[in-house]
Amino acid sequence: MSRSPQVGIADGNGWRDHLAERADAIKSAGRWRSTRTYDSLGPSGTLDHGPDPVVTFASNDYLGLSSHPAVIEAASAATHRWGTGAGASRLICGTRPVHDELQAELADWKHTEAALVFPTGFAANLGVLTVLGGPGVRIVSDELNHASIIDGARLAGAEVAIYPHLDLAAASALITEWPGRSVLVTDAVFSMDGDAVDMEEAVERCAQLGAALVVDEAHSVWGPNLSGPAGPLDAPPVVRVGTLSKSLGAMGGFVAGPRAVIDLLVNAARPFIFSTGLSPGDAAAALAALHLVRSPEGRALVRRVRAHTDRLTPNHPSPIVPVIIGDEHRAVAASEDLLDLGYWVPAIRPPTVAPGTSRLRITLSAAHDDEHIDGLLAALDRLGLR
Amino acid sequence: MSRSPQVGIADGNGWRDHLAERADAIKSAGRWRSTRTYDSLGPSGTLDHGPDPVVTFASNDYLGLSSHPAVIEAASAATHRWGTGAGASRLICGTRPVHDELQAELADWKHTEAALVFPTGFAANLGVLTVLGGPGVRIVSDELNHASIIDGARLAGAEVAIYPHLDLAAASALITEWPGRSVLVTDAVFSMDGDAVDMEEAVERCAQLGAALVVDEAHSVWGPNLSGPAGPLDAPPVVRVGTLSKSLGAMGGFVAGPRAVIDLLVNAARPFIFSTGLSPGDAAAALAALHLVRSPEGRALVRRVRAHTDRLTPNHPSPIVPVIIGDEHRAVAASEDLLDLGYWVPAIRPPTVAPGTSRLRITLSAAHDDEHIDGLLAALDRLGLR
Repeated sequence: MSRSPQVGIADGNGWRDHLAERADAIKSAGRWRSTRTYDSLGPSGTLDHGPDPVVTFASNDYLGLSSHPAVIEAASAATHRWGTGAGASRLICGTRPVHDELQAELADWKHTEAALVFPTGFAANLGVLTVLGGPGVRIVSDELNHASIIDGARLAGAEVAIYPHLDLAAASALITEWPGRSVLVTDAVFSMDGDAVDMEEAVERCAQLGAALVVDEAHSVWGPNLSGPAGPLDAPPVVRVGTLSKSLGAMGGFVAGPRAVIDLLVNAARPFIFSTGLSPGDAAAALAALHLVRSPEGRALVRRVRAHTDRLTPNHPSPIVPVIIGDEHRAVAASEDLLDLGYWVPAIRPPTVAPGTSRLRITLSAAHDDEHIDGLLAALDRLGLR
Repeated sequence: MSRSPQVGIADGNGWRDHLAERADAIKSAGRWRSTRTYDSLGPSGTLDHGPDPVVTFASNDYLGLSSHPAVIEAASAATHRWGTGAGASRLICGTRPVHDELQAELADWKHTEAALVFPTGFAANLGVLTVLGGPGVRIVSDELNHASIIDGARLAGAEVAIYPHLDLAAASALITEWPGRSVLVTDAVFSMDGDAVDMEEAVERCAQLGAALVVDEAHSVWGPNLSGPAGPLDAPPVVRVGTLSKSLGAMGGFVAGPRAVIDLLVNAARPFIFSTGLSPGDAAAALAALHLVRSPEGRALVRRVRAHTDRLTPNHPSPIVPVIIGDEHRAVAASEDLLDLGYWVPAIRPPTVAPGTSRLRITLSAAHDDEHIDGLLAALDRLGLR
């Protein structure tokens, strides 16, 4: 190599300096993060900050099913029956009977012809958007959609058009102006604000305009969900993305929709084709949790988390309740103050949320009891956060 | 909408026809695939084609650890201790002590300062390449690298330069001509050919040229691996990607490397930040398997799978042994003929491999016994495939 002006970049010191500069930029913006270790089964446990237990309002385990004895037993039994891993891609030899059973149950639950399980929800969104998207397709996406939708749209090589949050009229205009195929993609419930799309309006607009609709229902606990069959067979496809790692207490994601879409995903979705299948234990846990969700016991758990939510913010559409603070450093300080009182509510900062909207993100679960909620409300009052 | 010539595309029938056309194109090329369901713990089990058991040469469970009693017990115990899911991103409240312990053990195993566990190996490659890559960076990539490397490079927004398979001189030229930062990325063992990169040469060239090196050791069972510390602190970073779902018998992936890289991944790798953490059971299974791999028992398992491999092809560098057929239909027919004889060896077709290189892909495992190998060799001989 010639000793050009680039040598400072091209040599080892250049890389070291470059990595340090990027870290410093994140740190000086008050956004540097590290993992914290939580040692518990359920919402009360020990955090790495000290010996006193804390009550956690941070998990997406909305129904508390990750600690349900029947779910744990199902995972353990499947692990003993089929081992700790699928061993290969689902297309090679990574499919066990429990994957098929889970997919059939998910399709029945979502009222679709078929469903396909992915190892993560992130992979499910990458898969469906890269297969429905592509050159010649416009992906019309809510500005606050999840990172996996944003990255899926990027990877698809489609024309991507962003519309203002929840503005379905603006979305329709973007669909109408595109001379070809459009895909409208939206979260059902948005992960950092806990607000919800008008699902009926989204379905109706897409049917009228001939756009495919992809709805990510990861955070839909009591709604909104598409209810019933998605329309006549010649309507544009409606595809439902979901997760196994939130209300279902396990790990993984899925896509439910028309058979033609699911079969194409099996053949073209690279994060499905080129990943090891979900572990049998994870699949069995999700299946057992889904059986519970569809039972009277599960419906009671939904009523319970909804009642907890109403105590914080009546009629809020989801168990995700943000407390907007604004500044990164103040959000972190508020989180630390709550931790001193025994409540763990994480501060959410950029890049997860927009600059200036740093917040506490309270998530509620059926695993919380009434005393947990009493205590959280008192702590928020004491700190002037309500 | 105006009734323009695009109406056939924009209405529902357009989408239906479009999906059908794409499916037909795959079918007519002989590449249509569906999952097959395998009901077993270990390499002998029932496939959905009929009641007779088959011996499977398809799994990446190279050491048979997914069915090892100690690994199964560790997964089951962790599931009872911490539940069936992590409940949230590792950065929110999805880190349990078992994740930290696994990361520390992986870093020690790989002789790096730190390691970070991702929910899949696919996510690990997306994460490391999007964080090390970006505008101004050239990613220099072997033409046969895994799909997750290709997609990670695409998503990174870097300048991507592909070099002929294993041609490190060509890779060096691509690094040298780039006026800025370069990242050389290569599989250690290539998943569909089972051949291996010259690791020492890759390390040496990158050190000389100031390029970062990312090596994916997913399929390295007895090598090649980087051995020992990766060089002086001011050298360009060497990053080791690996999987928990192959030799370690579980699920997930990891990145091991300098602390500065790992800490930056925690803060910038979107598939890490925006995914639920690995289930405690999966993490515990991988940790137990890693303890075994580093023990005399694990070293004996490596010798065993290596001996099986030598019986098929002496001195082959990995337990992935391809039998190149060429045509898609003939590869499928050969796979079906073997299945009739009781041996399940999948046909691998485009897009997983290049057109005209369809093949049988035999993978060997320490879970196979000598009779399994005898039988496979006899069946291959009988069909004229050796």
